Amino acid sequence: MPSVSIGEIVDFIDGRYAGNRDRMISAVAPLADANDGQLSFLSNRKYSAQLTLSKAGAILVPQNLEGEDDRWIRVDDPYFAIARIMTKWFGARPMPKGISAQASIAPSAKLGTNVAIGPFTTIGEDVVIGDNTTIFQNVSIEAGSNIGDDCIVYPSVVIYDGTHIGRRCIIHAGVVIGSDGYGFAMHDGKHHKIPQIGIVRIEDDVEIGAGTTIDRAALGETVIGEGTKIDNLVQIGHNVKIGKHCLLVSQVGIAGSTELGDHVFVAGQSGFSGHLKIGNRVQVAAKSAVLEDVPDDTKVMGSPAMPFTEFARRQAALKRLAKKKSL
Amino acid sequence: MPSVSIGEIVDFIDGRYAGNRDRMISAVAPLADANDGQLSFLSNRKYSAQLTLSKAGAILVPQNLEGEDDRWIRVDDPYFAIARIMTKWFGARPMPKGISAQASIAPSAKLGTNVAIGPFTTIGEDVVIGDNTTIFQNVSIEAGSNIGDDCIVYPSVVIYDGTHIGRRCIIHAGVVIGSDGYGFAMHDGKHHKIPQIGIVRIEDDVEIGAGTTIDRAALGETVIGEGTKIDNLVQIGHNVKIGKHCLLVSQVGIAGSTELGDHVFVAGQSGFSGHLKIGNRVQVAAKSAVLEDVPDDTKVMGSPAMPFTEFARRQAALKRLAKKKSL
Amino acid sequence: MPSVSIGEIVDFIDGRYAGNRDRMISAVAPLADANDGQLSFLSNRKYSAQLTLSKAGAILVPQNLEGEDDRWIRVDDPYFAIARIMTKWFGARPMPKGISAQASIAPSAKLGTNVAIGPFTTIGEDVVIGDNTTIFQNVSIEAGSNIGDDCIVYPSVVIYDGTHIGRRCIIHAGVVIGSDGYGFAMHDGKHHKIPQIGIVRIEDDVEIGAGTTIDRAALGETVIGEGTKIDNLVQIGHNVKIGKHCLLVSQVGIAGSTELGDHVFVAGQSGFSGHLKIGNRVQVAAKSAVLEDVPDDTKVMGSPAMPFTEFARRQAALKRLAKKKSL
Repeated sequence: MPSVSIGEIVDFIDGRYAGNRDRMISAVAPLADANDGQLSFLSNRKYSAQLTLSKAGAILVPQNLEGEDDRWIRVDDPYFAIARIMTKWFGARPMPKGISAQASIAPSAKLGTNVAIGPFTTIGEDVVIGDNTTIFQNVSIEAGSNIGDDCIVYPSVVIYDGTHIGRRCIIHAGVVIGSDGYGFAMHDGKHHKIPQIGIVRIEDDVEIGAGTTIDRAALGETVIGEGTKIDNLVQIGHNVKIGKHCLLVSQVGIAGSTELGDHVFVAGQSGFSGHLKIGNRVQVAAKSAVLEDVPDDTKVMGSPAMPFTEFARRQAALKRLAKKKSL
Repeated sequence: MPSVSIGEIVDFIDGRYAGNRDRMISAVAPLADANDGQLSFLSNRKYSAQLTLSKAGAILVPQNLEGEDDRWIRVDDPYFAIARIMTKWFGARPMPKGISAQASIAPSAKLGTNVAIGPFTTIGEDVVIGDNTTIFQNVSIEAGSNIGDDCIVYPSVVIYDGTHIGRRCIIHAGVVIGSDGYGFAMHDGKHHKIPQIGIVRIEDDVEIGAGTTIDRAALGETVIGEGTKIDNLVQIGHNVKIGKHCLLVSQVGIAGSTELGDHVFVAGQSGFSGHLKIGNRVQVAAKSAVLEDVPDDTKVMGSPAMPFTEFARRQAALKRLAKKKSL
Repeated sequence: MPSVSIGEIVDFIDGRYAGNRDRMISAVAPLADANDGQLSFLSNRKYSAQLTLSKAGAILVPQNLEGEDDRWIRVDDPYFAIARIMTKWFGARPMPKGISAQASIAPSAKLGTNVAIGPFTTIGEDVVIGDNTTIFQNVSIEAGSNIGDDCIVYPSVVIYDGTHIGRRCIIHAGVVIGSDGYGFAMHDGKHHKIPQIGIVRIEDDVEIGAGTTIDRAALGETVIGEGTKIDNLVQIGHNVKIGKHCLLVSQVGIAGSTELGDHVFVAGQSGFSGHLKIGNRVQVAAKSAVLEDVPDDTKVMGSPAMPFTEFARRQAALKRLAKKKSL
């Protein structure tokens, strides 16, 4: 269990604090559960009532919060501050160490310094693994793939041949990257496979949630842009291009060749048909079906998706109509 | 192949039966397919016409079914009776035996009596496995997790560190439990990871379908209540609490911190946004998007979800409107 | 890298071509990217403008395309022709060779000639694997299953006991076949498991996308018909019967005992409730919820699904209504 003084924490996040700097903190906990050896935080003001009741030893709060408490550490953004603190001191997790003798590693694979590989993992020919990257057990990394520095690949991930993965990526258990796209030519009443010979390229700082599948391009590349975070059980079709710093919440599906701009937010269970252009900073509400291009800075909702205001107007009109007719 | 006398079956389920008790039964089959060495059952009266045509050696029927047949075994609930009979005599499946020499088991792991572990499975430090629990091949159970007695964990399941699983749980292939929740703090145009340091706790008698993902809590616990049955490819977000004896059909998604009461039924492909309170005995129709709290004993439907009656009223009004306008 | 003369390609696909037959081709590329050592194709006329700009060494075009270019190879169906060419010369992928000494293979398993099995794969008792079938690493094939000739099973696939798989099937990473169907009998407020003792039968020429789950029948069979292609993260419930040459796009879900005819097309994220009969050549638009039987040759859309024309009529009526009321 880590143990850090409040003073060290305050200095690290550049906080304002008038209390006892020598008190030790051993964990982070929610306001309602924290004890006096734990740090907590207020990121949403609707929980302000819990502040006085909380038994936390120290609490991150916004700079301009009204009131006074010598346990408070004032910062610009408590949520970002707690992320930094947890990452630095309280986020450690048991990880494989060293190269397991029970892994199957091709002689031509190149492993960086301080790489860890768990048992029952297969590393194919000409694979390149960057420094400080950790690969858990039962992972498959097929021939010719490369993975950058400081990545974590959790158990039972499958990475097909020729995949490129950047630095500081986190890939959760059961993810499949580089599987064949869904491409068939109909001839004489039968579907004939179009071999999928492109690749997947994942840029730096991408996180991919458990069970997500990302298909390789038919030709060329499927791309996940830098800093994009993908939740669990998301499906990315062949030749899709996702921009930088996007958020794709769980069970989203994106059909082949659709392109998303930067900073796009897609809520859970939404889908996109193929060959669309989705602009920058577009927001898609949950369970929407996006069937047309969407320009920059637009919020859409519904199945088929339409601008928020139009969706709301239709819902309201239908509600009134239903009331009237039922009289 | 098992072989059981009808007399033994009748006694076990306390049925009423006037036929030959010594006849042997070797399998269970549907009415239309069963032969005279097989047992069948009538659980839905719309299949009554198949009763006389069936060649089954014995048939479970409801107590008050009209007619007479010396093959009939009358019971209160034929569906529950067949479940018990199949579980006792006809449900066996090939399972790993003993501890595979090809598994990787940490020295500090504690295995109960009669535990089976398949090849290429990894058991981390301080893991505790209860008595009579069977773990198939290629499974990962990370450090500090514990699993109760009489569980079955099918191949390629991944259980992250610190997970608690109760007794008599069944976890199907490809399930991921304890992966990181989807939590990021936006700062300077980039998403920064909030380390997810809570756990998942699964109570007794839970079954989890293939490919389902259950994220660990950010802080605290994600909980699946006793007796809840989860189908395939379901996504459970961080800090979600599911009550007891719920049914979540396939491809359902539940966003972070939402809480479901007991005996909630959620049909396939429905979703819940985060931080909701869903009451006891709530029923959610297929493909609904639940965006607000739902009180006890309510049936909801639609995207966004609304009470069944309101949904039906709106659909009817829209149908009438479409007819009128098209004239 | 393969190298094939244009003449050999032209002969193989029976094309019309007036250019240099001796020029060599080493790859296939999109019109915009191809260089003069590469072959490209025009399958969608909206990209015709790229034809003259393309630097491709040879281009497959439709027989009746207007214009003239000595790089053009005229064929009846460029998309089908490129599929055949890529399959013959340009679709090769690194594959396991031989039987890994690190696999766990039951003594009673029967392997055909030229079978490859990767490390950390488990083959159960009485499994039969056909000739020329390749099984990657970390795969589980449970007791009594059989797989036909010329199949490919990618890493981390799990095939439960008793599954039958035909010839020339491709099963992508993370697929689960034969997991228990979702069947419970409610008794005294608890859900009691109905053992699932049927099997899954997959006919010839089926492809199954990454992460898809197919449940075994409660009794009898779950069936995937010949030539059907299933995308990623699809869920097929117990006792479902899918006809021949169907397409099921990603994240589709089909509940128990529903039957689809032949040549059915289901777009992404659509769902079917249980016990339905869906006719031949039915088309289901994306994100639809099919809750009733659908006759042959019908196109449906919506949640709940209705014929295309009715869906369009209602959308138009609602759009007009919303406009009017907001005035």
